[in-house]
Amino acid sequence: MERKILVTECPDSKGLIALITGTCAQHQLNIIRNTEYVDPVSGQFYMRTELEGVFNDAQLLADLDAALPIGSVRQLHPKARQKRVVILVTKEAHCLGDILMKVFDGSLQLEIAAVIGNYAELASLTERFGVPFIHVCHQHLDRCEHEKQLMAQIDQFAPDYVVLAKFMRILTPDFVAHYPQRIINIHHSFLPAFVGANPYQRAFERGVKIIGATAHFVNNELDEGPIIEQMVTRVDHNYSAKDMAKAGRDVEKAALSKALLLIQEDRVFVHGNKTVLL
Amino acid sequence: MERKILVTECPDSKGLIALITGTCAQHQLNIIRNTEYVDPVSGQFYMRTELEGVFNDAQLLADLDAALPIGSVRQLHPKARQKRVVILVTKEAHCLGDILMKVFDGSLQLEIAAVIGNYAELASLTERFGVPFIHVCHQHLDRCEHEKQLMAQIDQFAPDYVVLAKFMRILTPDFVAHYPQRIINIHHSFLPAFVGANPYQRAFERGVKIIGATAHFVNNELDEGPIIEQMVTRVDHNYSAKDMAKAGRDVEKAALSKALLLIQEDRVFVHGNKTVLL
Amino acid sequence: MERKILVTECPDSKGLIALITGTCAQHQLNIIRNTEYVDPVSGQFYMRTELEGVFNDAQLLADLDAALPIGSVRQLHPKARQKRVVILVTKEAHCLGDILMKVFDGSLQLEIAAVIGNYAELASLTERFGVPFIHVCHQHLDRCEHEKQLMAQIDQFAPDYVVLAKFMRILTPDFVAHYPQRIINIHHSFLPAFVGANPYQRAFERGVKIIGATAHFVNNELDEGPIIEQMVTRVDHNYSAKDMAKAGRDVEKAALSKALLLIQEDRVFVHGNKTVLL
Amino acid sequence: MERKILVTECPDSKGLIALITGTCAQHQLNIIRNTEYVDPVSGQFYMRTELEGVFNDAQLLADLDAALPIGSVRQLHPKARQKRVVILVTKEAHCLGDILMKVFDGSLQLEIAAVIGNYAELASLTERFGVPFIHVCHQHLDRCEHEKQLMAQIDQFAPDYVVLAKFMRILTPDFVAHYPQRIINIHHSFLPAFVGANPYQRAFERGVKIIGATAHFVNNELDEGPIIEQMVTRVDHNYSAKDMAKAGRDVEKAALSKALLLIQEDRVFVHGNKTVLL
Repeated sequence: MERKILVTECPDSKGLIALITGTCAQHQLNIIRNTEYVDPVSGQFYMRTELEGVFNDAQLLADLDAALPIGSVRQLHPKARQKRVVILVTKEAHCLGDILMKVFDGSLQLEIAAVIGNYAELASLTERFGVPFIHVCHQHLDRCEHEKQLMAQIDQFAPDYVVLAKFMRILTPDFVAHYPQRIINIHHSFLPAFVGANPYQRAFERGVKIIGATAHFVNNELDEGPIIEQMVTRVDHNYSAKDMAKAGRDVEKAALSKALLLIQEDRVFVHGNKTVLL
Repeated sequence: MERKILVTECPDSKGLIALITGTCAQHQLNIIRNTEYVDPVSGQFYMRTELEGVFNDAQLLADLDAALPIGSVRQLHPKARQKRVVILVTKEAHCLGDILMKVFDGSLQLEIAAVIGNYAELASLTERFGVPFIHVCHQHLDRCEHEKQLMAQIDQFAPDYVVLAKFMRILTPDFVAHYPQRIINIHHSFLPAFVGANPYQRAFERGVKIIGATAHFVNNELDEGPIIEQMVTRVDHNYSAKDMAKAGRDVEKAALSKALLLIQEDRVFVHGNKTVLL
Repeated sequence: MERKILVTECPDSKGLIALITGTCAQHQLNIIRNTEYVDPVSGQFYMRTELEGVFNDAQLLADLDAALPIGSVRQLHPKARQKRVVILVTKEAHCLGDILMKVFDGSLQLEIAAVIGNYAELASLTERFGVPFIHVCHQHLDRCEHEKQLMAQIDQFAPDYVVLAKFMRILTPDFVAHYPQRIINIHHSFLPAFVGANPYQRAFERGVKIIGATAHFVNNELDEGPIIEQMVTRVDHNYSAKDMAKAGRDVEKAALSKALLLIQEDRVFVHGNKTVLL
Repeated sequence: MERKILVTECPDSKGLIALITGTCAQHQLNIIRNTEYVDPVSGQFYMRTELEGVFNDAQLLADLDAALPIGSVRQLHPKARQKRVVILVTKEAHCLGDILMKVFDGSLQLEIAAVIGNYAELASLTERFGVPFIHVCHQHLDRCEHEKQLMAQIDQFAPDYVVLAKFMRILTPDFVAHYPQRIINIHHSFLPAFVGANPYQRAFERGVKIIGATAHFVNNELDEGPIIEQMVTRVDHNYSAKDMAKAGRDVEKAALSKALLLIQEDRVFVHGNKTVLL
């Protein structure tokens, strides 16, 4: 007996759940958990079905193909297969450290193919966990050339996702387009507040009472892609901008880890500029 | 076009979701939202289906009856029909006040048939909202006689639920058995911590850093029925027992209101001594 | 024995706490609680001292005046004296209702002198609690004339604070200047996200996972005054803009109530565009 | 210019704050932050004063000694001096890993003298961070003999605190008495709920909607010492006991880290069976 996750996306029509779950039943598959969502504006249908049984993948997908309306997308992910990620970092250790530790203790089940840094500061930390660290220095390179080198390094690992764990470089549209909906960033503010640079400094200047962090897919607009997870923590007048940055570390890493857990469990669907989490 | 909620409970077997959603599709009903749960220990299946369309209730229920295994329970609730509740109170205003105000502003859609108090303190507040207040004084009565009078008053309204909004009397098994899984209580602690009397005083003595409140169904064991909702709030060494009680008001009313909202939306299933919230 | 709150604000210098608490000790006053803050950038000193004893107000203030550096501000508030507020509303009941109910049950200790609405919808609710409701209709009036009528009504009550409990009108600089640092607004977003109109619609469109509310002093820039309190609540893809607005009610009223509680206890100091909460 | 923390504890009397801050002012010390608390029941006074300047420690303490009532305790901690801790573990990595990583990235400023495990599982993780790991196996030893070996190992490092980071052994009164108010434990429940073994299993059976973790000093009664910090996270019917344990990891490590941060900053005062956090 194996477990797989069936994810389905298609234009809504009557009887879709019955069609899909009926097909699964014909395959003698047991549904462990099923969640669905229909967007009331666009009428797009999303469903995540956790199945248990003996799978004939090709036949199941073909049968679903025959049953579902044109334009449907469905994928079958073995629960045991780990997503492969490449993590990009600059100098800050906390997000990378949290992911390394959670993979170590089993809280996250990802394959970290490599960590790439535009500085070398985090090499030692990475290598302690048996993960290769690659230094792709940005100095003396124009942005395009640097990204070309990054892409060359990333692509040799053929990752499912590229994770920006406090990678403090702005990406060009070309880079982003190379990994469509496959780049996950942690932004150190509660978006859309404080889009752009120095959010903690600006939060301090505005005198906010809560700060946050946002894990999101990256698209071409800075800090504008579909939000996967957001977390917040309280601050007060005693916090300097630096104290806020320090307090923010905990929510940054927690939001990013949560986003990766959702990805790991095939719960994240992208719908326009939003995510549906099933 | 109307909206109804179909709630189904039965022993699990393969193909249940397909059976139920297939039957709905045959009736040309559109599924707005569907959530299900199978308890992995007992193998009990629970499903909540929000349907839209033109309903033939009797036929739909008969078709489901024919399709589902023996021992299944299914009910069809018109979304527009409000649950009728009778609220029991003592002297504290905050939970009652919150419910009255939320019904007033539309945040809760319940029919408050009456408020019954063992003291008269809350009569004026209740009546300001056009709700009848009945004073059933417990003084000079033994517990059984008092409960007999309460039941007589409650039963004339034939409520769906009896809500204990800080009703500070212990109920006998006879009273509880008279409203099986239909009594909802708010307990002023984070159960199972501080079961019984004076929870804030005991939380103060123990020096806890977080206090809470628990909305639950009442069964025969004191503070032991299925938990519907719990909420918490932070306290510190500056809080006296009285300050904790004051801070606790906000979570008490929030937890009770949330439980009533879940009830209103037909999301609460009781499974042994627990709830499944779909 | 009486309790009073001494609030002090002055440029920082060595020995300030000793000076102030020493003066209180000479007056045989017991310090129940003392909190202070020095802004590290501006060097401004703030202190809140809760005192118990027999007070000679004039002498105490004179002694402090003599002891403290030039430019210091200190005030002595009897703990028992309630702040007087006038509440401005439009049509939404939840914030007003929460304040009325909290004053009723003692959770807030404010004197609500009057409620003024630009619509008449909330007259009945207000009057149920024995508070006068004044309808100052904005129709057929230009903004200045309307505000002139509002100010005339407000000023007859000589309130300490004007509370905008979902008053959906933009105020002119003249109105704001008339009540410097005395207007408290609840904005239905987690500022500075979604400044301006329709924040829930825009939060929905952006696909945020957390929404919030901000209680703040009003200054001339829209949604820009010193923030007193912020609160948040989680939402997900199932929430429409309308659902978010409904979920937001709870944090709106909680944030506004919390701000009023801080005001009631003389804990709010304004420092530039921020608040210090002692 | 140096920074030090002055902590004072004594029976309350009028003018204490003035005495202490006055003495500091005579020493030309600037007060960066001052927080105090008087327990209204016992009348015990606690104060934490963050000072900046040029210190004559012996003279300052002598002057305070002369000024303060008999029975007062005051200590002066250089802000830069790190507390030395020995961490005891069993097999679970998450709490230890979190502390190692936070010390690595500077979020915690502690000196981890050694990690001692009754199993060897965490040796590799510990040593990656340059910290010695000592395996003190409990097998084939009676409890007293095992603890004797533990104490021998611990004492060679003369730690300020012994941290139980999921050390799954019950300690004897002798061991506890050897480190009075110097043992910090993380208990995997929201105490006093689920005192003792298997709290997640019992939380699961009770059907709670929120689980938590408690960092506390250890005294002779199991799970009964002064609580330093508690944190909680929501769960629902989908969580098995094992899922709750997994979700609980995040709050366990967060609560323990927060407690260590409070210790690091000299903010924790023990008052009977409670803590005062200044």
